[in-house]
Amino acid sequence: MRTPYEDELSEFEHALIGMTRQVNTAMQDATTALLTADLQLAERVIANDQHIDQVNAELEDSAMNLIALQAPVASDLRMVLSGLRIAGSLERMGDLATHVAKAARLRYPQSAIPAELAPTITAMGEVAERIVERTGEVLGHHDVVAAADLRVIDDEMDRLHRELFHQVLSDQWSHGVEAAIDVTLVSRYYERFADHAVTIGKRVVHIATGAPYDSTHR
Amino acid sequence: MRTPYEDELSEFEHALIGMTRQVNTAMQDATTALLTADLQLAERVIANDQHIDQVNAELEDSAMNLIALQAPVASDLRMVLSGLRIAGSLERMGDLATHVAKAARLRYPQSAIPAELAPTITAMGEVAERIVERTGEVLGHHDVVAAADLRVIDDEMDRLHRELFHQVLSDQWSHGVEAAIDVTLVSRYYERFADHAVTIGKRVVHIATGAPYDSTHR
Repeated sequence: MRTPYEDELSEFEHALIGMTRQVNTAMQDATTALLTADLQLAERVIANDQHIDQVNAELEDSAMNLIALQAPVASDLRMVLSGLRIAGSLERMGDLATHVAKAARLRYPQSAIPAELAPTITAMGEVAERIVERTGEVLGHHDVVAAADLRVIDDEMDRLHRELFHQVLSDQWSHGVEAAIDVTLVSRYYERFADHAVTIGKRVVHIATGAPYDSTHR
Repeated sequence: MRTPYEDELSEFEHALIGMTRQVNTAMQDATTALLTADLQLAERVIANDQHIDQVNAELEDSAMNLIALQAPVASDLRMVLSGLRIAGSLERMGDLATHVAKAARLRYPQSAIPAELAPTITAMGEVAERIVERTGEVLGHHDVVAAADLRVIDDEMDRLHRELFHQVLSDQWSHGVEAAIDVTLVSRYYERFADHAVTIGKRVVHIATGAPYDSTHR
């Protein structure tokens, strides 16, 4: 039988996993809004971000209570402290989905993405979905091996990010400077989104093994 | 007389303030490297980022020890937990300085910044300096009033960010798409740098007053 303390720890972790789902929905909807110039959907993503922020704030309160009342030590304490940082990364991933939605809103009723780039953005949305789903699994099972997969998926995102640059900088680019900037910033939001997933993976490794957290960026 | 516990808490805070100084130096040097196409200086900023990462990692260990051995409660515990998130923001500010330095390195021996934009970038560097210095003061004195100043300085950064966009998108722009993208990304690094300072200010308000942390972005 589980103690109330274990229940609280487990709830804390479940809230993190719940955040990965919220963030996933936000980025998927933002991608759809961007590609189809769907203003209503973009507005919904932007409005819903407060729910993600809310969970982040609640997790901070939970951590305070857990630490004050249960005095976790060693690996449990590390989990709670790292969990707070993971919540911060997820909150930021929600912000990045919001930025994509805002890019969609800014150019409405046009699409911010020229038609020939839609396949690359679609692929970035798919990679975002894969990496955040995997992040949820990594968090759920403290799976150190799966954490390494996050880097592989991130490499795919980086490749797409470079591909977009390449398209924007090619001689065939006919959409001018403003569209180039839109595409570049949007592409960077996806790339940062995936970076945060990698950061979460590194934190899970830190939780599971106690090895020093590696905060270097490649 | 102060207890060892108070000394530890105070050391924890001093380490955060020390990070503001490291981050300030990094961004100032990165700005100089960018404006003068100084490769050696850019490389130094990039190499030194590991020291900022190191302090961030040490602060996590300190927090673990403080909590496990001293069992802080209420406002002290809130300070330690928020302090960890503040360290995360400062670490990210160091990364952003590194990104500016990498932009300088990428275009060496050219400057990534067309000459007519140098005054705006110079101003962004100065605003970055002001906001991070003020952040150090806010942290040092838990100064809730000064925390509000950070928003005012951030508004100035946002104004410069918009000004750069305006210049890049004007009919007079003659440097092509690649330079436009360089300028846009660099400008965003400064803007995010200032955003993190505002976030830290909000956390200090949270530490000082216990009011819920406001994670919304304007």
